[in-house]
Amino acid sequence: MQIIHSPRHLGHSGHVELMNGRVVPAFEKPERVAMILRAVGERQLGPFVDPTAHGLDPVLKVHDEAFIRFLSTAWQQWTADGRDFPALPSFWKAPGMRAIEPDNIDGKLGHFSFDAGCCIVAGTWDAVQAGADIALTGVDLIADGQPNAFALCRPPGHHAHAGTMGGYCFVNNAAVAAQSFLDRGAARVAVLDVDYHHGNGTQSIFYDRPDVLVCNIHADPMQEFPYFLGYADEAGQGPGEGFNANFPLPWGADFEGWGAALEAACVLVADYAPDALIVSLGVDTYKDDPISQFRLDSPDYLKMGARIAKLGLPTLVVMEGGYAVEAIGINVANTLEGLLQG
Amino acid sequence: MQIIHSPRHLGHSGHVELMNGRVVPAFEKPERVAMILRAVGERQLGPFVDPTAHGLDPVLKVHDEAFIRFLSTAWQQWTADGRDFPALPSFWKAPGMRAIEPDNIDGKLGHFSFDAGCCIVAGTWDAVQAGADIALTGVDLIADGQPNAFALCRPPGHHAHAGTMGGYCFVNNAAVAAQSFLDRGAARVAVLDVDYHHGNGTQSIFYDRPDVLVCNIHADPMQEFPYFLGYADEAGQGPGEGFNANFPLPWGADFEGWGAALEAACVLVADYAPDALIVSLGVDTYKDDPISQFRLDSPDYLKMGARIAKLGLPTLVVMEGGYAVEAIGINVANTLEGLLQG
Ligand SMILES: [Zn+2]
Ligand SMILES: [Zn+2]
Repeated sequence: MQIIHSPRHLGHSGHVELMNGRVVPAFEKPERVAMILRAVGERQLGPFVDPTAHGLDPVLKVHDEAFIRFLSTAWQQWTADGRDFPALPSFWKAPGMRAIEPDNIDGKLGHFSFDAGCCIVAGTWDAVQAGADIALTGVDLIADGQPNAFALCRPPGHHAHAGTMGGYCFVNNAAVAAQSFLDRGAARVAVLDVDYHHGNGTQSIFYDRPDVLVCNIHADPMQEFPYFLGYADEAGQGPGEGFNANFPLPWGADFEGWGAALEAACVLVADYAPDALIVSLGVDTYKDDPISQFRLDSPDYLKMGARIAKLGLPTLVVMEGGYAVEAIGINVANTLEGLLQG
Repeated sequence: MQIIHSPRHLGHSGHVELMNGRVVPAFEKPERVAMILRAVGERQLGPFVDPTAHGLDPVLKVHDEAFIRFLSTAWQQWTADGRDFPALPSFWKAPGMRAIEPDNIDGKLGHFSFDAGCCIVAGTWDAVQAGADIALTGVDLIADGQPNAFALCRPPGHHAHAGTMGGYCFVNNAAVAAQSFLDRGAARVAVLDVDYHHGNGTQSIFYDRPDVLVCNIHADPMQEFPYFLGYADEAGQGPGEGFNANFPLPWGADFEGWGAALEAACVLVADYAPDALIVSLGVDTYKDDPISQFRLDSPDYLKMGARIAKLGLPTLVVMEGGYAVEAIGINVANTLEGLLQG
């Protein structure tokens, strides 16, 4: 399986988040990729390849132009008056407030975000661009005949909406890849999001469209971020009705309950008969994840990969969350190994 | 002028806010009231009176029941799993997310707020209730024949919407007072908000009503919090059209520009011929305010009070913002003295 990686993710380092009433180093950190590289290298799951540059056009097919302009200039604006520390949003919109982009960068940060955990540092935008290129290179490989590929994106993407960042996500790599598959000739694409958190961004971007089926298995938003999306009754709207499926599970879910949801989601994907499958792979479902409450164990990821392999679809795996640094490598490698061995 | 004060505001102490990418002690702090007490005491502007208990019914006339239930239980829920430090919201709603109240207190904090500066500690709810009683007691005094009164509320209130806290504000004391004037027989009430920041909560609560005229003089939201409300084209809607007026001013405004806006607002208030006037008094328009960018000087507050006195209306002054602790007392006392001397 070709693994697309770039060291440019390291630009997104030293960032922080507001967690539990305190600003702390972000749980989403570069060490995550280091441990994945080590594990997939040890098992020789590669080869590794570099991403190729795709520019912003494919990104702008799923993201608002004003949002991308903001991302590309936010650090310069934040530091223009002398600030040399990470940028965090502080202010959002109450119900009834207006969707106006303010001139002030502090206002812009709130306008284009939905949490106080999406932190921008000097190298964030370059890392984000590299991440989108990684996902798009994965699409190229599969469109050129590879049965699968692993886009080792960082920062993750599935929480990013068309016009808002949040949950450590800036550009929605999986959504950019799904759109690229369509633009390269696919009639239908399925996204299977197995991250612990609901992929609100991916759902939102394709919510009214029938050409991308989005299936999410995640912690019940009544209990867990992103709280305001990811409920079981969200089935798509307009032409997209019936092409979104959510499987919220309670805190404490292990592979028995989780695997049943995966089975149900795989049945939906198979019925949809897509030309390509994108797996938004978060391994924060792991039992020892520091910010999550599911109980999957490392061998479960082999089973997860094997079940997805049975779909027999061209499959692009896109990296999302997973914060237990000591185990993220083995859990990702297990998923890929399960996928390869079927 | 009777000054309504309660030491219960001291329960809202030790709170923090996310400012400039860091969690810092909140600029809105108990010392503010201490310095006001000292200044109005020195000038013998009193007497001081205690608030009387009014219960929650008058509060629920302008606030959502679910929001008030949240405020009254948030600290217990935040600390239920062992947390003993101030509660700060971290997660909000992206455009398109659902207005669902989550079970999880971290989700509730985001659902009922619009910034990461509205911090809840053990004594917050008691202080907030006392603040509402202070404003309501001021209404009682004026309804019973006093020409004016000063409701020394803390925390402030004008940023609080019907269902969301923000900008250091939880219950909208001025809005509660305005509604109480109406319920006690007034046909029309005017709110003149002279705080540096737009009183988005007060505007929002009365936006579709003709019985409360809301006039705001404040920093342009393109440059300043609350960013997403307070623009010049917001004139009210439905039956409320024509009964909201905003006077946004650029950073650096001094009393020349500010006073012209006050003059225009006073003409609107006079034309409206209300039965009572509420002044939302923030003195963060002061030149040395640590978080604000206007340039009013202490003698300007005498002129402000005098101009308002010329309206000749029964006037309840409700305390809002002002963070230059060393000058807040003199600036408030000057406003009250200007009001008394006319
Ligand atoms: Zn996640
Ligand atoms: Zn203010």
